[in-house]
Amino acid sequence: MAQASSNGNQRPRVVIIGAGFAGLRVIEGLRKAPVDILVIDRNNYHGFWPLLYQVATSILEPQQVVEPVRSIIRQARNARFVQATVEAIDREQHQVITDRGTFPYDELVIAAGSTSNFFGLEEIKEHGFELKDMPDAMALRNHMISCFEQAVLETDPECLDQWLTVVIVGGGPTGVELAGAIAELIRNDFRNDYPTIDFSKVRVVLVEAMDRVLLTFPPELSQKAQQALTDLGVELRFGTQVVGYKDQKLHFKDGTSMSARTVVWTAGVQANPLGKTLGVSLQRGGRVPITPELHLPEDPNVWVIGDMAYLEGKDGKPYPQLATTAMQQGRLVARNILHKLKGERLERYRYVDRGTMAIIGRHAAVARIWNVNWTGPIAWLIWLLVHLFYLISFRDRVMVLVNWIYNYFTQERGARAVVAPRRMTTAQLEAAVAEPSRADPTAATQT
Amino acid sequence: MAQASSNGNQRPRVVIIGAGFAGLRVIEGLRKAPVDILVIDRNNYHGFWPLLYQVATSILEPQQVVEPVRSIIRQARNARFVQATVEAIDREQHQVITDRGTFPYDELVIAAGSTSNFFGLEEIKEHGFELKDMPDAMALRNHMISCFEQAVLETDPECLDQWLTVVIVGGGPTGVELAGAIAELIRNDFRNDYPTIDFSKVRVVLVEAMDRVLLTFPPELSQKAQQALTDLGVELRFGTQVVGYKDQKLHFKDGTSMSARTVVWTAGVQANPLGKTLGVSLQRGGRVPITPELHLPEDPNVWVIGDMAYLEGKDGKPYPQLATTAMQQGRLVARNILHKLKGERLERYRYVDRGTMAIIGRHAAVARIWNVNWTGPIAWLIWLLVHLFYLISFRDRVMVLVNWIYNYFTQERGARAVVAPRRMTTAQLEAAVAEPSRADPTAATQT
Repeated sequence: MAQASSNGNQRPRVVIIGAGFAGLRVIEGLRKAPVDILVIDRNNYHGFWPLLYQVATSILEPQQVVEPVRSIIRQARNARFVQATVEAIDREQHQVITDRGTFPYDELVIAAGSTSNFFGLEEIKEHGFELKDMPDAMALRNHMISCFEQAVLETDPECLDQWLTVVIVGGGPTGVELAGAIAELIRNDFRNDYPTIDFSKVRVVLVEAMDRVLLTFPPELSQKAQQALTDLGVELRFGTQVVGYKDQKLHFKDGTSMSARTVVWTAGVQANPLGKTLGVSLQRGGRVPITPELHLPEDPNVWVIGDMAYLEGKDGKPYPQLATTAMQQGRLVARNILHKLKGERLERYRYVDRGTMAIIGRHAAVARIWNVNWTGPIAWLIWLLVHLFYLISFRDRVMVLVNWIYNYFTQERGARAVVAPRRMTTAQLEAAVAEPSRADPTAATQT
Repeated sequence: MAQASSNGNQRPRVVIIGAGFAGLRVIEGLRKAPVDILVIDRNNYHGFWPLLYQVATSILEPQQVVEPVRSIIRQARNARFVQATVEAIDREQHQVITDRGTFPYDELVIAAGSTSNFFGLEEIKEHGFELKDMPDAMALRNHMISCFEQAVLETDPECLDQWLTVVIVGGGPTGVELAGAIAELIRNDFRNDYPTIDFSKVRVVLVEAMDRVLLTFPPELSQKAQQALTDLGVELRFGTQVVGYKDQKLHFKDGTSMSARTVVWTAGVQANPLGKTLGVSLQRGGRVPITPELHLPEDPNVWVIGDMAYLEGKDGKPYPQLATTAMQQGRLVARNILHKLKGERLERYRYVDRGTMAIIGRHAAVARIWNVNWTGPIAWLIWLLVHLFYLISFRDRVMVLVNWIYNYFTQERGARAVVAPRRMTTAQLEAAVAEPSRADPTAATQT
């Protein structure tokens, strides 16, 4: 490799940005390779986000769906971790610029995921909620409980409506799963917790711009999901587009509006804006076009995978932004880097459809696996087992299972306390104002 | 009762301020009584603070040591809850003034606990940490982990010392338990997590103004505790008083100083300042003097218990500010209110010593129970069992036990991710600026 020489006698430096599903698979695939891995993430943990909605709805606790990156890389002796926010990629100088210094690379794997796409609706970005990251889920949990605490003493009917209305925008899997879980939280826990509240005033509304939920699923499954949501008391609004959110009022394109203190936006994602610093032209949603070998067409040392990547399948459609895609691409990048080291030919990415599923509530889920539709308790059980299986650590599996069993039998959710740290850490504050020059970028990659 | 008539035909209104150990025992004792109970707390949960240090040191998760007040009062059909911050007591008008309105009472139980006493050291209050409440524990946990993340890239030796030094001020049970747990966290987890850090530079220092830790224990037990702390690598500094903390430097009375980013203050408590609004003269530490029947000498309708109360035993010393005292007093106030309702004579408080204990680490604890000294693995096991037993809910017991067992066998702590909500809840922000007049104080007490 040409790059190896730029590094003296050292082994090639592989920098991985992002410890999500994609990044983790790269680490796993390279943990015995003769390379030095540096993992960079703005958080000190990997998040298992398919269960994030359960944190937002008081079923699970934050630490049960995340795993410290340092725990994970203990199995990879060639890997180091730096908690930092990446600001730009300097492809000419082969380095990653972060808020904590600059890190050189020989091979760069960019797997920084996606963020919410508010399509310019700044008011929702500022006053609404989203569900992309742990801080979102914790804020949403605390907020929903606090709204009911406020409602207890509210005498103004208009204000009461605001406290008691939850609107979820977007009928994709995240929106559907969250709507179902919120409806159950209210039906089971809140109904017991707040005996003085008139629950006929409580509303959970799912708003979708198209004419059905779960657009990527077969229509029969959308029907089933909609039935399950309606059974839980969720109001469905189709063909409805949100145009604004001001003074606790959500405004729709048709001129109507709805009072709500809680608006959760799940109606769109965009690639991490880091792609903009690559100096290549981007695809829709800010996704970075890559070759079937998963690197930039003009730069074989820069690999882009997961939600950030744009690669079309045979049908001319881009591969979906799913955990499955991210994991498959992560594994392939690791193999391709190994191929490169050995002077072998690179493999091309081939998407393997592992199916899709969404859970709505107790005994209710829909799944499309092996071209078969699954619904009801069977789909629900499959969903639980698959998610339990994919959790990263044994401890998390045990804790989640205990919580689920407890929740199943008591129908009571344990994590209903509104808790938050007193303040940001001094270190975080420090990091926010620190001069990047203070940090020594080589320290982390030295053994 | 005279007050009952002021309330028309309704039952006497008992307002309980604080859902701590004391408040909970009052609810329990009155749950079948012909009274209307209103519980007011600024949080929506009861905290089991003897395990708080385990949250600060990544062993347990926040929700495992707290229980929503609304879960607890489900067993008391005559009880209502309002999450509010009490600002003052108006004894003339018989009402409690909060940030969410004014609530009338016939009997008032004040059990609002204590806060840290910084003895005027504002710099420590602002830049240091404490361990009185959940937000403290979460902030300390996040901070300690972030300090090590910062240390990884630090090249300035002076700054490195700051990131890697933890000072605990105060050698009481909280200080001792926290110092031991932090030392273990560093020895076991951090040593594995941060292979590039030079651990000879890491310091955990326990500072005590007197000449031994655990002053309320027999000197032999202090010795044992000190030995256990030293074995874990904790530096002990006796006869040392802190006089200031500036620019990451802790200054002592003897003129010496120590660089540290993490300073935890456990060296003093004072009664909740609410006592100042009662219009009575207070005792040391802001404690409210009460009669042996546990009410204000001049006002038999206002009961003050737990950490806030000042009552001397036969030896002329005030009863200790312990969970035991709080629970005993809570139970007695409930009984005395019942006696009053029946026109019976009130009982006087009699402190029953249930013993004291402190855990230092794995297999190491000291306890003084039934006038016997217990140390080593036996004391450690007693400590674990007693704390497990006193946890409020079955769920918490299961989760804590699973965590302890996991921790015991793997020596790895699960809760090492730095997590925090994105922001304060809209409701919290709202509450902070809300006009008290908006809330209807009677809504909460109506059935």
